[in-house]
Amino acid sequence: MIRLDDLFVHGWKIYQDTDGFCFGTDAILLSSFAAEKRFSTAVDLCCGTGILPLLLAANDCAEAVYGVDISKPCTDLAEQSVALNHLQDRVFIRCEDLKKTSLPNGKFDLVTANPPYFLPGTGKTARQEVEASRREETCTFSDVAAAASRLLRFGGRFCFVFKPERLTEAMVACSGFKLEPKVLRLIYPKFGKAPELFLMECKKGAASGLKCDPPFVLYDESGKETEQFQAIHRF
Amino acid sequence: MIRLDDLFVHGWKIYQDTDGFCFGTDAILLSSFAAEKRFSTAVDLCCGTGILPLLLAANDCAEAVYGVDISKPCTDLAEQSVALNHLQDRVFIRCEDLKKTSLPNGKFDLVTANPPYFLPGTGKTARQEVEASRREETCTFSDVAAAASRLLRFGGRFCFVFKPERLTEAMVACSGFKLEPKVLRLIYPKFGKAPELFLMECKKGAASGLKCDPPFVLYDESGKETEQFQAIHRF
Repeated sequence: MIRLDDLFVHGWKIYQDTDGFCFGTDAILLSSFAAEKRFSTAVDLCCGTGILPLLLAANDCAEAVYGVDISKPCTDLAEQSVALNHLQDRVFIRCEDLKKTSLPNGKFDLVTANPPYFLPGTGKTARQEVEASRREETCTFSDVAAAASRLLRFGGRFCFVFKPERLTEAMVACSGFKLEPKVLRLIYPKFGKAPELFLMECKKGAASGLKCDPPFVLYDESGKETEQFQAIHRF
Repeated sequence: MIRLDDLFVHGWKIYQDTDGFCFGTDAILLSSFAAEKRFSTAVDLCCGTGILPLLLAANDCAEAVYGVDISKPCTDLAEQSVALNHLQDRVFIRCEDLKKTSLPNGKFDLVTANPPYFLPGTGKTARQEVEASRREETCTFSDVAAAASRLLRFGGRFCFVFKPERLTEAMVACSGFKLEPKVLRLIYPKFGKAPELFLMECKKGAASGLKCDPPFVLYDESGKETEQFQAIHRF
């Protein structure tokens, strides 16, 4: 079922398919994290129905934001949302394989990605419509990092959200593609629990040296959103 | 000045040179972390005056613990502590370069290291006596990981403490030497602050998949040791 959801920014809305992938906390965390530093041009890889391109475009600095996804049903919905919010001059959706995207190399300030978290055959099985967005059926993390490295200008940033289980893989892949990890922010569901996600900012061509942020905690003991989560969570 | 300090375990003591390197919180954290799982044989690389070999030998499971350091003044003191505590049948100190240690390959259950944290020319300058233990003058992290990989049996564990700034380097080096990162524990000085150290356990030849522990916090708001730190901190 297609549903129209509020983005709580500039009155914008987003179409989502409730039988498919709907955006979650990870998208909200990533869009806020990526926008802590300015950018003019950005590409979101694995953009799904366009939550990241829309949220990135909501920043004043954003001049052109591209969204790339291989799924036609997803990019169709993303394009409808772009049109509904009158963003055709700033947000551009492309239905293509990120491994051979037609976007130019070395031109972008920022690449974001909320890539599939699980390897094929691992993680809980979801409905077929959302499988590709959860599992690496059509692209691996390494494909995503390679694409980010190609698209970014020297000094440009690659910001992504991923599972702590795969931190090593992510660091090794990014380093291998000259995307040096510069900021790591672990996301904890509660105080005293293990982290469930991490945000990472890599910088193309930078020297090594990682800044680990203080823990980012989503909910307090009573299950209420923490102040730091409330500050970015308008949904 | 040579000082004799209490180890608060089995009545053992350790000689330390107050003009040289004295062990700190990092050694206590590492010895406790490494001993959360059983081992019979262990090697501590960059053992200094022997704090890790002594603390590891205090575990009932420990049958033979080796300490390797290139500094003669350090290993001389370490040997004096071993003799003072009557541990000559269990703790063996070797003054040698870890890059060409005479210890056998592929035989050990556990390798630990509290390696130099800083690259030559970085970090605050310390007195000459402690420079080598703080900076990579005589061995790099990659040398330490290579030695760990050689010494460990298949499935053996490499446990080390290091600075978050160098997490990427550590993960890339360990992966490259078939030491798969399995546990990451970030050490925070206080709640809400950035981590100052991390502990990592790698397993030789293991499949990928990292477990990130909940934050380990040393001091509470009032500057008192937290319960989790007290539980391992007898000094």
